[in-house]
Amino acid sequence: MWTSVRCGLKGENDDGFYMRRCVEVARKGIGCTSPNPMVGCVIVKDGKIIGEGFHPKAGQPHGEVFALRDAGDLAEHATAYVSLEPCNHFGRTPPCTEALIKAKVKKVVVGMVDPNPIVASKGVNRLRDAGIEVIVGVEEELCKKLNEAYIHYILTGKPFVTVRYSLSVNGHLLDQLGGGVTDSGGYYSQLLQEYDAVIVSSSLLSENLPIPSSQEHGANQPFWVIIPRTPTSSKIPLHSKGVIFTDNETATAPEIAQEGIETVALDQINLNVILEYCERQGFCSVLLDLRGNFGDFEEIIKEGIKKHYFNKIVVELLPLWSECDDGNPLLALRSLERTLEVTNLQPKISGQSAVVEGYLKF
Amino acid sequence: MWTSVRCGLKGENDDGFYMRRCVEVARKGIGCTSPNPMVGCVIVKDGKIIGEGFHPKAGQPHGEVFALRDAGDLAEHATAYVSLEPCNHFGRTPPCTEALIKAKVKKVVVGMVDPNPIVASKGVNRLRDAGIEVIVGVEEELCKKLNEAYIHYILTGKPFVTVRYSLSVNGHLLDQLGGGVTDSGGYYSQLLQEYDAVIVSSSLLSENLPIPSSQEHGANQPFWVIIPRTPTSSKIPLHSKGVIFTDNETATAPEIAQEGIETVALDQINLNVILEYCERQGFCSVLLDLRGNFGDFEEIIKEGIKKHYFNKIVVELLPLWSECDDGNPLLALRSLERTLEVTNLQPKISGQSAVVEGYLKF
Repeated sequence: MWTSVRCGLKGENDDGFYMRRCVEVARKGIGCTSPNPMVGCVIVKDGKIIGEGFHPKAGQPHGEVFALRDAGDLAEHATAYVSLEPCNHFGRTPPCTEALIKAKVKKVVVGMVDPNPIVASKGVNRLRDAGIEVIVGVEEELCKKLNEAYIHYILTGKPFVTVRYSLSVNGHLLDQLGGGVTDSGGYYSQLLQEYDAVIVSSSLLSENLPIPSSQEHGANQPFWVIIPRTPTSSKIPLHSKGVIFTDNETATAPEIAQEGIETVALDQINLNVILEYCERQGFCSVLLDLRGNFGDFEEIIKEGIKKHYFNKIVVELLPLWSECDDGNPLLALRSLERTLEVTNLQPKISGQSAVVEGYLKF
Repeated sequence: MWTSVRCGLKGENDDGFYMRRCVEVARKGIGCTSPNPMVGCVIVKDGKIIGEGFHPKAGQPHGEVFALRDAGDLAEHATAYVSLEPCNHFGRTPPCTEALIKAKVKKVVVGMVDPNPIVASKGVNRLRDAGIEVIVGVEEELCKKLNEAYIHYILTGKPFVTVRYSLSVNGHLLDQLGGGVTDSGGYYSQLLQEYDAVIVSSSLLSENLPIPSSQEHGANQPFWVIIPRTPTSSKIPLHSKGVIFTDNETATAPEIAQEGIETVALDQINLNVILEYCERQGFCSVLLDLRGNFGDFEEIIKEGIKKHYFNKIVVELLPLWSECDDGNPLLALRSLERTLEVTNLQPKISGQSAVVEGYLKF
């Protein structure tokens, strides 16, 4: 994504370059802005960045305000780049349009208009009415992807749901994560900080297996949604906030209740109810993390597919060729009862497919 | 791989840059050099490339000879970069070491020594004895990957075997290829030209389905190894060379015999016999392409895994969430009897795993 930056393709008029920088800056608020979007702002004058800012947390000022503060008086006649249309209404903070007008910027470049149809383009129009030149839609796809969960939530009122799972290279669903993926910078650690809530099976939790947490520096840990279809008596070592859903087939609520952890009893574990709960909490994004006992997820996945609850998948292809038990010729290891290592996995896109190569290690 | 080239990281002393160029040049001979390796050579003087050459085909001169011809008299006191140690023996062509000595190059940079232990380092020693400075092992991994099949064949006497297959994102083995992958530049088209032989099921072939062929410009089409475990009476539209293996369970040889196509009858289809056949033909590399009736491959895959015949896998992850029929919760579409599209697949490496994301399209 940043190749053009590293290769020095920046030019004074390269709006795309500064917008990509906005997105990079916006990401500093990752996991902390919900239910607000991530927004980054860069102030540029004479081909130099003179101010940068991002929205750090709901209730705190927006990215434009921090960037203008950073630029100070230099902001006059400068160009402001902002990944999302500046707001034009009084919320918990004053409108950013007024801050930009007051700072006397001469031009504003906007990545995407506000996804909320009620306010879309109002900020842009206010700026234009004030005599400021406004360009809209620079690196729009990138700006949309940055806030894909937020946009979905604004447009539908429902949380954006991602299903994550691991497969062996021969297509077997695995209850493991690959080496390094839970470390800081690994995709799993990054996923956890991105989502407002994570649904996990209680079977994943035990005294020996600590609850997964993001290892990113200063990460906001997600809210844990525990579904104990597999009866469990082990104490859930929950250090952050969470909820436990129980049903008639599992341990009764008092048995697994814990101080500080809400317990919700249902007749049957039901994704619809779980997502409604998340919605009431104002969660924009929910990660369904398929680890632990897969049986716990069977009905949930069926329901999610049938009712179109799932928006995104994240598939981890592990460097393993695994044993399995059906008629699939790739699963020919049954009699060998073992797992082979696969090294040097290399994924790439070809046409519309992801192609992964690797080497079998016997 | 070529980022550093595009980003202009080349410097006069950047041996890596010129060696990567050697590999790029060597690839022009892809699919045509077997049983010889691909070799590229670049002659550099005063920071400029003054000659380039590659080995186009077994029996024709090696890359060094073409590069020296290209450089002409300028080769004197120049540096020659070559992806594989220059040969020091009379084969079908005179030794390249003598050509380099005669051209009076002052330095030779070698990507990797000859993998054949009997002749390894003999070329390097001959050049050093002649007073030429020699550096060995620049971009060695890249040079080894270029000729991974050749190296395996030289060291073991057996063909390098790659298994290719397609999976849906939820791990179901599929008998399809993704959009664009068979076009020129697509991974499938490129794979076909890379391998000396391709094993396919006869069930793949019919009047309507032409035998797959590489669409790369001037591609060398592989030798087709047909395994008709599924009885077939359709004429095999074979335009290139091939062999048909039959067994007692399939149509008798005369029924499927075709002019120009050898037929080999076995008691039972057997990977060992097929690979021995390929070995006798001098094939360095064999692609086992899992398309058609998967039942045809069941025993072959079992045998290949058990006997360690497989060296490499190429997995195509299709942008589909597919229906299936076992207890795997990812395969929850059974009752829906359909396939969902998945868009914007994005693969990446995290830790030792390939991670693929995509968006479900209902």
